[in-house]
Amino acid sequence: MSEATSSTSAAVPFADGRFIGVDLGGTQLRAALVDAAGSVFATRRVRTDRDGGPQSVIAQIDRLIGEVSHGSLKAIGIGIPGSIDATTGSVLGIPALPGWNGIPLAKLVNQRTGLPCFLENDATAATIGEWRAGAGRNCAHFVYITISTGIGAGVVVDGRLIRGARGLAGEIGHTRITDCSDMCSCGKIGCWEAVASGTALGRRARKALAANPSSAIATFAAGEPANAYHVGLAARQGDDLALALLKEEAAWLGAGLVNAQHLYAPERIVVGGGLSSLLELMRNDIEDVVRDRLLPGFRSASLVSAALGDDAGMIGAALQAAEAM
Amino acid sequence: MSEATSSTSAAVPFADGRFIGVDLGGTQLRAALVDAAGSVFATRRVRTDRDGGPQSVIAQIDRLIGEVSHGSLKAIGIGIPGSIDATTGSVLGIPALPGWNGIPLAKLVNQRTGLPCFLENDATAATIGEWRAGAGRNCAHFVYITISTGIGAGVVVDGRLIRGARGLAGEIGHTRITDCSDMCSCGKIGCWEAVASGTALGRRARKALAANPSSAIATFAAGEPANAYHVGLAARQGDDLALALLKEEAAWLGAGLVNAQHLYAPERIVVGGGLSSLLELMRNDIEDVVRDRLLPGFRSASLVSAALGDDAGMIGAALQAAEAM
Repeated sequence: MSEATSSTSAAVPFADGRFIGVDLGGTQLRAALVDAAGSVFATRRVRTDRDGGPQSVIAQIDRLIGEVSHGSLKAIGIGIPGSIDATTGSVLGIPALPGWNGIPLAKLVNQRTGLPCFLENDATAATIGEWRAGAGRNCAHFVYITISTGIGAGVVVDGRLIRGARGLAGEIGHTRITDCSDMCSCGKIGCWEAVASGTALGRRARKALAANPSSAIATFAAGEPANAYHVGLAARQGDDLALALLKEEAAWLGAGLVNAQHLYAPERIVVGGGLSSLLELMRNDIEDVVRDRLLPGFRSASLVSAALGDDAGMIGAALQAAEAM
Repeated sequence: MSEATSSTSAAVPFADGRFIGVDLGGTQLRAALVDAAGSVFATRRVRTDRDGGPQSVIAQIDRLIGEVSHGSLKAIGIGIPGSIDATTGSVLGIPALPGWNGIPLAKLVNQRTGLPCFLENDATAATIGEWRAGAGRNCAHFVYITISTGIGAGVVVDGRLIRGARGLAGEIGHTRITDCSDMCSCGKIGCWEAVASGTALGRRARKALAANPSSAIATFAAGEPANAYHVGLAARQGDDLALALLKEEAAWLGAGLVNAQHLYAPERIVVGGGLSSLLELMRNDIEDVVRDRLLPGFRSASLVSAALGDDAGMIGAALQAAEAM
């Protein structure tokens, strides 16, 4: 546990009990002590023991829960980057972690801790976190979109999170939006994710750098393959190529965000994930696309950055457990 | 009223009271006596007096209501092909009927009839009709898509109709799906409606006929500009061009139906509108596209034809009024 890091905040009174939120990621495993208002009182994280498989990772989860626990707890929520059977609390599959298909995670954690345990998809958990305690607070119609390696989303309409059959609603990243693209992570052509994700921006940057090797993007990449992060750094310095790449990225983001508005009619769109840090650099170009394409009758949703950062999933998983009680 | 037609069914007992459903169309105005189970007991229709404006049409509505009324009524629901302010019961706008902006239709009908009156968008009303009394019955997750001149939709997720801000959710017809298309009815390029509506199919048929004037499509069109209906007639006779046109239509429909599944995760998709009569001719090709593009984890929604035909909106408006009481 030498790699573990933690933080603990001051002793503010807990609102309506204490809950644990766990974010099981392909790289990091994190846990937090959260109250029913979404305030975080302690966090702890370790590198996910991928090679150890479910047994080892469940032991890690158990340890992290023990380390952030304080006082009497009501329930545990776990967000996972995959699909779940919410009825049985079993994992259906985690693309980033082999060996988890069919693992009854909620039951196993319940047996170890004695606490009720609920699973949630991580994008759904992050949506709940931002909705209840972040940038979507008090919003009856809102879409959370996380843009990083891929594009994930969660949707609140009429004051309710929509789930759909098997909890799969909201996969806007894999809707077809164009005829030509590189191959999407799903293996198809034309998905929004294939043209608007951080991965797509990085790919365009590497292609463009071949013809413009003097761009500041190359300086920031420092010999590594350039990615979206390097584009952002160069754009902030006024690098022409980086700004042009962000303009193209904004056009693709805008096209998908118009689709999201036509589909779900949100009042607010909350953007999370790595690319949300570039939102202000792209805002004008995104808003141009929205103004151009939005149907009469629609009022453009406000576009805001996520408030909880990487903690959204962990907080949302805890709040979902609180609501399920 | 000589042009009015009507039908009245046998005296089956009314379930939980009687309601009137009105379908205010750009061409036809229709009304029905409906019970809370969606059974229709009498219908009546006239040509909408477009030129007479709201005052004349409201008098027509009043007359039709009187003609289908039987016994004590509980409420009236009116579906309109435009946008409404559900709170005040006013019409915001009807593209097909000039002069209706701001008309307090619900209040005016209430003053004339003494009955509570509720407005609903017509696609939403048809969705409610199919959900409660048609092909979407007992389905917690379902999408109704009407394909004719344009493409409209209504969405039920988790056992609830989604509305969104200002009731505008579900405009999947105007989501961007491609880079190239003729201009959509909304004035933009690339909308699903621009490539998959009956209008788009008719347009492709007319272009193709120029190079293939011997197709049976031309025979059925009989000198008129060919449309989607003529393509269907020719396809049923095995005409090669018509079958090729339906294959292309099925590819576009399939692409949008996959998007709908990723967005809303329905168990069932109910297809209404004129093109639903061609569904069986296109089913295999549509299902090929769905099989190819649907994400792992999703189970393909069943694809069924609407059950209520043109009555869906009228019945749904009545049922919505019943639920609002």
